[in-house]
Amino acid sequence: MTGGVKVYGVAASPFVATVLVCLEEAGADYELVAVDMAARENRSPHHLARNPFGKIPAFEDGELTLFESRAISRYVLRKNNRMDLLGGEGGDLEGSAMADVWAEVEAHQYSPAVSNIVRECVIKQMIGAGERDQAVVDENVERLGKVLDVYEERLSESEYLAGRLVTVADLSHFGFTWFLMTTEYASLVESRANVKAWWERLLARPAVKKVTALMPAPGGVTTTTI
Amino acid sequence: MTGGVKVYGVAASPFVATVLVCLEEAGADYELVAVDMAARENRSPHHLARNPFGKIPAFEDGELTLFESRAISRYVLRKNNRMDLLGGEGGDLEGSAMADVWAEVEAHQYSPAVSNIVRECVIKQMIGAGERDQAVVDENVERLGKVLDVYEERLSESEYLAGRLVTVADLSHFGFTWFLMTTEYASLVESRANVKAWWERLLARPAVKKVTALMPAPGGVTTTTI
Repeated sequence: MTGGVKVYGVAASPFVATVLVCLEEAGADYELVAVDMAARENRSPHHLARNPFGKIPAFEDGELTLFESRAISRYVLRKNNRMDLLGGEGGDLEGSAMADVWAEVEAHQYSPAVSNIVRECVIKQMIGAGERDQAVVDENVERLGKVLDVYEERLSESEYLAGRLVTVADLSHFGFTWFLMTTEYASLVESRANVKAWWERLLARPAVKKVTALMPAPGGVTTTTI
Repeated sequence: MTGGVKVYGVAASPFVATVLVCLEEAGADYELVAVDMAARENRSPHHLARNPFGKIPAFEDGELTLFESRAISRYVLRKNNRMDLLGGEGGDLEGSAMADVWAEVEAHQYSPAVSNIVRECVIKQMIGAGERDQAVVDENVERLGKVLDVYEERLSESEYLAGRLVTVADLSHFGFTWFLMTTEYASLVESRANVKAWWERLLARPAVKKVTALMPAPGGVTTTTI
């Protein structure tokens, strides 16, 4: 990738972290430009011009401005000719479709449950946003367990969610799962042999290791970093 | 598209309706196979083999089985060489990226708000699932209004969300917006000139007209159809 790629956000955001994993997988050069959420810099006119919803990450590649982490990840992989990670190498229709299916599962089944657990157990404490609501945690632990039961079955058939090869459908789980694994609910992953092995395969990837080195140690995040 | 394409679900599901719009846009032949949600047919072993999360739609094209409506729509458009509707005609990286950004906005900003309004104001009544919770409605009407303020600005710059041409990012709004427009909160769309004109452009599309003809009249839906 040519120069001029900027990611606006902080690695401690699960959404930003997942985009960084895709940039590292693509071998792209990029600059991570901090956005101070505690100072509401994400609501500044500069940031709203990049993302009208005031969220992170936002992304620039020269004149092109993008937002929404999953759209950014797809752009980065396409631009760097990593169609394999989109499931579609050689115009493989079925491969693309399976990567899309499991990326949507992440977005609409996994993420809604795990994000509530991570918010209550990690993020609230990080940013001083009040006490954990254990009822919300319990409800979402049950919900995530049911989702992971489906994953356990799926991952008994293939090493990765879309099939034999790793795709963006797997990578998109990185950010929230990294934080989940810092909590007592890591057991949701560890108690399921196939899911555990899958997560360990992801963690062992060089691109993922580069990003985990940027992630905050549990409890070591200041209020300005998320 | 060759024979053997089946969509499992009912047109009265917003998710199914949006897939049908993409099939019609692609000029694909397909069969809509009813799934009786009231009889919990979606939890039957046959359906769970198609979609392990027990939701509709599920989709078959010969030997290939897919689920998650947005993944199905992308497959249908790709298979039928409608890369223009994915924003990527001629390998246009920027066009694909903008279609992806606004498809993600639909999934993560628009849909979470509108789906709560439609559930409370339409679906609960359809399926006899209790009283409308007006507090939930009010909260989501406010949230959807803020999202539509961003749409109003965006649609002052271009006729469609991703730019000059219609894409899946626009089409993906069909199902829930159709139901929203049967409620008193249609004013959220009607009070914003650019959003209103955009919705009317979508409704005028022949593919959309074919699907609206399948949709239930407000209040005319039985408990077996959603």
